[in-house]
Amino acid sequence: MAKQAPPGDPQMIGLDWGTSSLRAFLIGSDGTVLAERNGSDGIMAVSPDAADLRGEFSRIAQTAIGDWLPAHGSLPLLACGMIGSTQGIAEAGYLDLPTDLGAVGGQLMTVELTIGELHIVPGLQKTSTDATAPDVIRGEETELLGLLSAGQTEPTTVVLPGTHTKWVSCEGTRVTDFSTSMSGEVFGLLSTSSILSRLAEPTDDFHLDAFDWGLSVGADDPAALTSSIFSARTWALDGRLHAEAINDYLSGMLIGAEVASQLTTKADSAAPFIVCGTADLTMRYSRALRRHGRETTEADPRAAATGLFRIAEQSGLVPTKETTND
Amino acid sequence: MAKQAPPGDPQMIGLDWGTSSLRAFLIGSDGTVLAERNGSDGIMAVSPDAADLRGEFSRIAQTAIGDWLPAHGSLPLLACGMIGSTQGIAEAGYLDLPTDLGAVGGQLMTVELTIGELHIVPGLQKTSTDATAPDVIRGEETELLGLLSAGQTEPTTVVLPGTHTKWVSCEGTRVTDFSTSMSGEVFGLLSTSSILSRLAEPTDDFHLDAFDWGLSVGADDPAALTSSIFSARTWALDGRLHAEAINDYLSGMLIGAEVASQLTTKADSAAPFIVCGTADLTMRYSRALRRHGRETTEADPRAAATGLFRIAEQSGLVPTKETTND
Repeated sequence: MAKQAPPGDPQMIGLDWGTSSLRAFLIGSDGTVLAERNGSDGIMAVSPDAADLRGEFSRIAQTAIGDWLPAHGSLPLLACGMIGSTQGIAEAGYLDLPTDLGAVGGQLMTVELTIGELHIVPGLQKTSTDATAPDVIRGEETELLGLLSAGQTEPTTVVLPGTHTKWVSCEGTRVTDFSTSMSGEVFGLLSTSSILSRLAEPTDDFHLDAFDWGLSVGADDPAALTSSIFSARTWALDGRLHAEAINDYLSGMLIGAEVASQLTTKADSAAPFIVCGTADLTMRYSRALRRHGRETTEADPRAAATGLFRIAEQSGLVPTKETTND
Repeated sequence: MAKQAPPGDPQMIGLDWGTSSLRAFLIGSDGTVLAERNGSDGIMAVSPDAADLRGEFSRIAQTAIGDWLPAHGSLPLLACGMIGSTQGIAEAGYLDLPTDLGAVGGQLMTVELTIGELHIVPGLQKTSTDATAPDVIRGEETELLGLLSAGQTEPTTVVLPGTHTKWVSCEGTRVTDFSTSMSGEVFGLLSTSSILSRLAEPTDDFHLDAFDWGLSVGADDPAALTSSIFSARTWALDGRLHAEAINDYLSGMLIGAEVASQLTTKADSAAPFIVCGTADLTMRYSRALRRHGRETTEADPRAAATGLFRIAEQSGLVPTKETTND
């Protein structure tokens, strides 16, 4: 039985380093998150024309987590996300579908920063066929590993809602397919910059009735989406849709159409959909799925930290956690 | 037989006064357009908070057409479009569907400008049902009257492409239904402000192959639109879609999905679709319709002038043109 550090001792630092944000996790020996920091220093914070890209990213990392680094010795640093893209610090490559996420830890790429070696997780890619476009994932593969159980064999669909929502088909930790929907970005554009935004009065309140109304309109005829969204204007002019509820009606319509379209390609399995995003988006997608009679499981939003720890175990950056039968 | 002025003599001034533009037509006794002016003084050029709305609109009209007004006597002034909305000079009302466009001339509303009486054409409105949202048209009713022949009895669909494309179902000059699609506005947002615009290099060239490719992707699965548009990015990253062709691929996809969805609700009639918009948009929609085996007729883009003349005839603002059998 290998000697393990007590759970409270930091074992590694995990970074979820995306386009517009940097989440840092100080992780203990059993995968527990001991501390977490969230910042806006995503890879866009560094100009692609910077003379010393590696120096710039080193400085950001130093600022974000420098005080976590022990005075003597070191902690393994593992990052996932767009930091591993051509717009990041180095291209960390992709694993081709279908792929088992158990293989990710064997494919890390390593770059030298001033604060030490940074290991970077590869993304996943789906190559194109005559019928389907290529697609790529970076960062979500790590969340998936944090969400999925290796023992599970039933096909599962994981929904990762966001600006670009990912729908991922898995069998255990094996990823067989995924696709991306831009309905989050389309919602952002319509609700801030379109004719629909002129009548809307954004609020922080959630308008359940308007959202459900939109869900139903979107799901009933997803092919008519570019027509249906105009009803956010005409119902508002008509007085039946209140100015504060327009955005929730629109959000419902976009999510309703997206979910209805995705379900046409999913086997009618009894396995619950796993939904993992912000609390607000997770609630919206879960509601849309339940409307079609599908069960949903809402996942831990710290899945990225769990995934980073598992990949560190796979790659030997941290000792493998022993399985006990106690 | 009533005495008529020779065709070269101005009989009226027609204004197509929309949200962002003002088109003015000097029209002769047989409906011929003797002169045309296009300006950007749409109703948005006047602040809704202006102390003297009528004065502001009078000044714009004076600048646009003041020199067309004869020194003695006057020419009838007839306007259609958003000038007749609550955001314009006065609310000119709506005719309820179904309605015959022959009735429009009897429902004009009149306001006094410094340059004379301005007659305004009412819009059309579709009231809501449990299943469908309300919708309104302003300006298009006049174009329709310019396009449609009263003798025609076969059901026709008129497509008026633009930022908000109108699909109008008619029987002769009777309008039975219409709907609005926002795919033009969605295209504008995606091609200028989304992640897709970052890879695109806009050009004035038309990329037929990319447009047709997009048409086919959009039409094959219109319900998947918010997913399919992401392929404009992944195909571009893959190298198969060139940066200059991205926007035409995207335009094809949006129009392809819109046309496929609209056709599911249209009877499989042999009557051609009438398409009336800018030369570029008319070409794109005609191509999309022909891909589904539908015939199209491309209409005179000056239909608004013809419609304004017919409404002036209906209302007695100009003498009715005699019908000859020569």
